[in-house]
Amino acid sequence: MAAAPVWSVDPRTGNPREQVAVEATAEEVDRAVRAAHAVRASLADRTVRAAFLRTAADLLAEAGEHVIEAADAETALGPARLTGELARTAAQLRAFAEVVDEGAFLDIHIDHEDATRTPPWPDLRRYKIPLGVVAVYAASNFPLAFSVPGGDTASALAAGCPVVVKAHPDHPATSELCASVLRRAAAQVGLPEDVLILLHGFEAGVELVRHPLVSAAGFTGSVRGGRALFDAAAARPAPIPFHGELGSLNPVVVTEAAAAERGEQIGAGLAGSMTMGAGQFCTKPGFVLAPAGETGDRLLKSLTEAVSDTEAGVLLDHRMRDAFLAGVRERAGLPDVEAPVTPGAGGEHTVAAGFLTVPAALLTTEGPHDALLEECFGPVTVVARYTSQDEITAVLSRLPGNLTATLQIATEEADGSAAALLAALTPLAGRVLVNGWPTGVAVAPAQQHGGPYPASTSTSTSVGATAIERWLRPVSYQTTPEALLPPELREDNPQGLPRRVDGRRA
Amino acid sequence: MAAAPVWSVDPRTGNPREQVAVEATAEEVDRAVRAAHAVRASLADRTVRAAFLRTAADLLAEAGEHVIEAADAETALGPARLTGELARTAAQLRAFAEVVDEGAFLDIHIDHEDATRTPPWPDLRRYKIPLGVVAVYAASNFPLAFSVPGGDTASALAAGCPVVVKAHPDHPATSELCASVLRRAAAQVGLPEDVLILLHGFEAGVELVRHPLVSAAGFTGSVRGGRALFDAAAARPAPIPFHGELGSLNPVVVTEAAAAERGEQIGAGLAGSMTMGAGQFCTKPGFVLAPAGETGDRLLKSLTEAVSDTEAGVLLDHRMRDAFLAGVRERAGLPDVEAPVTPGAGGEHTVAAGFLTVPAALLTTEGPHDALLEECFGPVTVVARYTSQDEITAVLSRLPGNLTATLQIATEEADGSAAALLAALTPLAGRVLVNGWPTGVAVAPAQQHGGPYPASTSTSTSVGATAIERWLRPVSYQTTPEALLPPELREDNPQGLPRRVDGRRA
Repeated sequence: MAAAPVWSVDPRTGNPREQVAVEATAEEVDRAVRAAHAVRASLADRTVRAAFLRTAADLLAEAGEHVIEAADAETALGPARLTGELARTAAQLRAFAEVVDEGAFLDIHIDHEDATRTPPWPDLRRYKIPLGVVAVYAASNFPLAFSVPGGDTASALAAGCPVVVKAHPDHPATSELCASVLRRAAAQVGLPEDVLILLHGFEAGVELVRHPLVSAAGFTGSVRGGRALFDAAAARPAPIPFHGELGSLNPVVVTEAAAAERGEQIGAGLAGSMTMGAGQFCTKPGFVLAPAGETGDRLLKSLTEAVSDTEAGVLLDHRMRDAFLAGVRERAGLPDVEAPVTPGAGGEHTVAAGFLTVPAALLTTEGPHDALLEECFGPVTVVARYTSQDEITAVLSRLPGNLTATLQIATEEADGSAAALLAALTPLAGRVLVNGWPTGVAVAPAQQHGGPYPASTSTSTSVGATAIERWLRPVSYQTTPEALLPPELREDNPQGLPRRVDGRRA
Repeated sequence: MAAAPVWSVDPRTGNPREQVAVEATAEEVDRAVRAAHAVRASLADRTVRAAFLRTAADLLAEAGEHVIEAADAETALGPARLTGELARTAAQLRAFAEVVDEGAFLDIHIDHEDATRTPPWPDLRRYKIPLGVVAVYAASNFPLAFSVPGGDTASALAAGCPVVVKAHPDHPATSELCASVLRRAAAQVGLPEDVLILLHGFEAGVELVRHPLVSAAGFTGSVRGGRALFDAAAARPAPIPFHGELGSLNPVVVTEAAAAERGEQIGAGLAGSMTMGAGQFCTKPGFVLAPAGETGDRLLKSLTEAVSDTEAGVLLDHRMRDAFLAGVRERAGLPDVEAPVTPGAGGEHTVAAGFLTVPAALLTTEGPHDALLEECFGPVTVVARYTSQDEITAVLSRLPGNLTATLQIATEEADGSAAALLAALTPLAGRVLVNGWPTGVAVAPAQQHGGPYPASTSTSTSVGATAIERWLRPVSYQTTPEALLPPELREDNPQGLPRRVDGRRA
């Protein structure tokens, strides 16, 4: 049987652009994982890893024009957005190089022998070591920042783990370009190119998570796809950590006072955030609790105007367009749901942004309207209009886990009177915002991009410095002679690493 | 149908002692979880939590005599060992109180707004919050330190999570006593008693891990039981973290030079470690690679003498005794396996310690001898005799994951010449020892009690300060007004907590 071809497709027309590769067979997956596993020791040196990440950033920036051209042709995300995404991706690689240099992620603990403890302490020295080969499943909606050269790859390499990436079928040409950049960067710093290997194909992805030499996986995508891979990871003879970012509604609560103070501004801000990137952000605000009555009406008027002004957009592929149209149709058809701006088909290949409204009272108990509490990928949001605080609380208590939750408050509520609402939002999400919009995820140490299931399948973050923690495990050395200890754990701290000694920061 | 009775049984005779409780029905499990969930906010104050843990330690010490009497009657572990275990358990509760006081576990990151970043940083403040109700599955072999008042409970309460414990059927009376101590301690510091609830029954345990309001689970026990619960946790509509410590062979490698230098001492040390607590430690050295030939013979002679001198012991229950006898019989019956001291039945209720030998060459490839590479709970170990370094390497590469791996080297090998062997042992375990014995697990920050599967089902530790990390998840607040922030994240750091600010330790 001939190998299945992998085509790059233009989402603006639905036409194939070029054949980029072929899908990997089970044998090829096995070969790739073994090759990555065989070179894992080459990543042991932190200095080399940091240099690799910085070189990758440099080469990616150098290749920028080609990469952006390919990515735009495959994703229709547009050069402006992709230029920003490339800069972000390069900055992310550099940020992880800094994390590697500093070494705090090694989480070094040294406890000297202490006979006075109950029970007595022997000399114990602990740090974190890389887990081994990491499988990365690239996202559709960020062909760079959450794909081949993205956060999962950067953090896994920073941790010292070789990476096998399963490309997303929506941007195989971009993936090939980026993989060659990363492999070139490896070679430039004297590393084997196989510290990063790219694979294509759905079946290859399933084989990958089952491979005995794969030690952990990172995933960004749909609930259905992510859950299937999570289940496969958990069902292995030896289960592995599966860090998946699956889906998120990203609820927003607008207080009555906030709507009164700046309803127009909130409506316009919401329109901008929910239509950004044609509504294909995992942090798109997909569900808004706004007041019923006149104050809320002003917000909706401004939202209506801004959304109506939005140009039709191209989604990442035609399957997503079909899913969007079906999802919108299902939701708009529910009783008492209205569409002040009807989301749906734009032209033959585009979609038009819109939003739905529903009385919040219909969402306080289980029923057919629960479809409105599920993510709908694309430029649509649902505004549920509440008539009381109790309705807000009741609806919030029914929401699934989220990446983000946002509170829009009035100036005077910043004095602490909004504390109860903030406390009600905190259990729902990994990131809680006040008077901001959730789209746009800073690559910062304090970032948390992950949240209760289905937002993610673990308690970790996939963005920011601490994302590196996902690919490490602690190992402790007991009564081990100095000359046999890894340098990181030696008494004289030759690498000048931050550490805790005898329970205190040193 | 009448509720199933829960009996306390004397393992020295197999006779029931008293009916302690009844098994919880599904309804009772639901009620328990809801009750624990309802009081979760009471644990929000760190000062109260620390006081609770210290009071629990005090009350446990006060109740010591009764607790030890009950535990000895149910487990036959003996007053000396149980007195030590009680002291360790109280010290562990106090150690977690210190962890709570210091607050480093909150892992606070504060990043101020910074427009020069790519993309720009908004004000972001992250710390860790408790996950919610934690299910704890108590161990058979540590009725205190890994049971109701043990490390899982202590670390979960320290994290701010209410705990529902599923008692181990081998010590229900001890469990009831300890639960009442913990609930009394809660009341003494003004907490609701339901921050700790005890349940009995196998089915109750299964219900517990499936309950939608249970947020995480900790388990210490067998591979079979732990894997079944892990699978149930992963199969939930919303999967939860399952931190299980399942099984471990705890390999030991004795170099030729070590055997030559102090073979007798190693033999005696091994005998002590493998027969401690009737071989019922999860860190029992269950597999030893020792040299063939005369040097190895000396080690074996000393091991033979010491093991022969060991008195017959009582296992925790008669089911374990049956499993031990069957396991030993299966292994001893394999071709070319010898039993210099035959492990097996002692008296009617006891077992006699022993050990088996096998040529290491029989273990370098898959075959019937692979049974020797599986844990056998009880006072038995397997000594595989190697004739070359290659045999050591080949056998090590076939071992499953372990809690510990031990290297016995000669004085001159401490100069670094044993580094390759140490490097071969590190991927196998969470704790690596040189010239020590793995039984005895210090409650220290640098401890790692956990290892590659099946040693544990996650990368975490169940002993030591960092065990608290299992019950937390990060949440980040973006552009949140000072008055709405939790005190832990306020600019002026009113609680004086350790934190990282703008990527640096502050």
